[in-house]
Amino acid sequence: MKVLAQLAQKAREISQVRLYKKNVERVLSALLVSGDFWELVDMSDLPVPAASGIVRVLVEEGLAFIDDEENIRLTQKGLDLVKELGIEPYVDYTCQACEGRGIPFYANIEFYREFLQVTKERPKAIRDYDQGSVTPETTVTRVLFMDSRGDLRNKEIVVLGAEDDLTGLAVALFRKAKRVLILDIDKRLIDFDNAIFKELGIDNAEAIVWDLRKPLDSSMLGKFDVFVSDPPETIPAFRAFIGRGIATLKEDGGVGYFGLTLRDSSVFRWRDFQIALTTEFGVAITDIVQDFNHYITWDYHAETKAAEIAPVKRFPEGIWYRSAWYRIEALPGFKRWNEPISDDVFYLDEEGSTT
Amino acid sequence: MKVLAQLAQKAREISQVRLYKKNVERVLSALLVSGDFWELVDMSDLPVPAASGIVRVLVEEGLAFIDDEENIRLTQKGLDLVKELGIEPYVDYTCQACEGRGIPFYANIEFYREFLQVTKERPKAIRDYDQGSVTPETTVTRVLFMDSRGDLRNKEIVVLGAEDDLTGLAVALFRKAKRVLILDIDKRLIDFDNAIFKELGIDNAEAIVWDLRKPLDSSMLGKFDVFVSDPPETIPAFRAFIGRGIATLKEDGGVGYFGLTLRDSSVFRWRDFQIALTTEFGVAITDIVQDFNHYITWDYHAETKAAEIAPVKRFPEGIWYRSAWYRIEALPGFKRWNEPISDDVFYLDEEGSTT
Repeated sequence: MKVLAQLAQKAREISQVRLYKKNVERVLSALLVSGDFWELVDMSDLPVPAASGIVRVLVEEGLAFIDDEENIRLTQKGLDLVKELGIEPYVDYTCQACEGRGIPFYANIEFYREFLQVTKERPKAIRDYDQGSVTPETTVTRVLFMDSRGDLRNKEIVVLGAEDDLTGLAVALFRKAKRVLILDIDKRLIDFDNAIFKELGIDNAEAIVWDLRKPLDSSMLGKFDVFVSDPPETIPAFRAFIGRGIATLKEDGGVGYFGLTLRDSSVFRWRDFQIALTTEFGVAITDIVQDFNHYITWDYHAETKAAEIAPVKRFPEGIWYRSAWYRIEALPGFKRWNEPISDDVFYLDEEGSTT
Repeated sequence: MKVLAQLAQKAREISQVRLYKKNVERVLSALLVSGDFWELVDMSDLPVPAASGIVRVLVEEGLAFIDDEENIRLTQKGLDLVKELGIEPYVDYTCQACEGRGIPFYANIEFYREFLQVTKERPKAIRDYDQGSVTPETTVTRVLFMDSRGDLRNKEIVVLGAEDDLTGLAVALFRKAKRVLILDIDKRLIDFDNAIFKELGIDNAEAIVWDLRKPLDSSMLGKFDVFVSDPPETIPAFRAFIGRGIATLKEDGGVGYFGLTLRDSSVFRWRDFQIALTTEFGVAITDIVQDFNHYITWDYHAETKAAEIAPVKRFPEGIWYRSAWYRIEALPGFKRWNEPISDDVFYLDEEGSTT
């Protein structure tokens, strides 16, 4: 297994992302079922720079090559290595009914249909704010998940900086919350939400333009039962979205939901997030559902660092970007973090690439 | 909402378990759909002593009563309170296909059938060792989950003190692991496993009697790619099972799987476990799938502390005890903990009750 360790070491040097042998093994396993780079990233659960670094090293070492159609394929030497190491093809047993979320979006089919109908003319994701919307099935299941945990009916809910997914709109549309406040930097989404609330006579929901780099207004602190967010995966952004989310909670027992991905952040950084949550912020993690959030490939893909550093120019064909769904509960003594944040490395760092 | 806070405070005094308003709210929500105590525990995700304390306080305060068939029912005063607080009935959207696990047990139906066939004569759970087996669907899905994450094929796998679930047997039966070592204190299970391995000619698996209160033998340390366990939820037991599990891992990138429940441990203690994992042991948590493990009610239920402290004598009718499925990855510098453990509070403390 020394070969794998050497490959991992070289990939780490190229990509500047922390990774280990197991990651190389997963890419080789994925290569036995697909040659599409974006599918490899998906199957190997790696930050794009890491997956790209591994593929480049495999090519350099003569273990893989890129064919005319930009498929990444193992060479005979690569196939021999895979056989020698006993690496087998990637397998997927994901539930076809619920897409692996544990709750099927069609558990409330009327709600799903209404969400689709109401959001037909939704604004497109744009690059300015690291946007990338999840599938409507994802958004609808987020709401059902919250409802099944007692985190929706008659609750005061704030959605912070994730309205490209229209989660705040969906929560309001479910018509069971007591109050919904939506904060997002993108005026297009705020206007879209407010227009729908007006049209449908939903008078307990409100969307306002807010830049989460700024501290929240004191009128928002300690006022909510539940927050929902979807932060970029840098440490400063995590603080700005999740730290402030926790700061909005009324009291212990308050709940937070957010997505975190391994496509823009390593498992090393996940541990940093988890340490910050449990020690500094004073919350417990109750759920981490991998691959819960499915993102539609953004129109600005060509402009992303991901596209630039990928070993191939071919664009993603299907869904390749997924994130895990976290649920946390605030325990007594939890911390309300609400400091200003500088612009530096807010969206991007060495592990991130999709903005 | 002051009433809820007072009820929570009283329940905390009676039960000696840390809990908050939200927990009382969840019990009231559950009471709107069931009067069965064990179903309430299940729906409210609470340690048995906490749920029992809450029910007792509701009865004391005239908000609930226990009818002739030992159903817990809200009084008119209770119903008025629920209405006033806007508490709605518990809802459940669990996927019927995969039972909420995200992977359906029938994804490999031949394997499921073989597991059922081979384990027909399995030893019954006994109280001596805090046993309680999960459903065969649970065990089989654990194996598929491991396989889908690249944690099974050609891996060296150790199963520590959880063989009442026959997970080690199932892993070996899947016939894809490189090596399987099963450690359990119960000689009946060890003999059962070894007899099957012999009968089926599975020569890469071995089960040995081991008391996990003792340190592992040096021949077991740093030798495995993956460990699986299912610890009792006390801090000493967590160290003995999970600390030692981590100590068996060869290197960073090593993986651990285990169950943790909220039926025998509060979310407060979950945070303690999570802090120990991420800071002391040096691992990252990649998955927490709630209600993944479904336990068959044990024959010795009547003898448990749970039965004793329950507000009713009626036995559970269906599955009420579930636990979450954790997956962790060891990061560079992870700690191999392997100290001896005293017998004190190994199985039971103020939050536990099912042993």
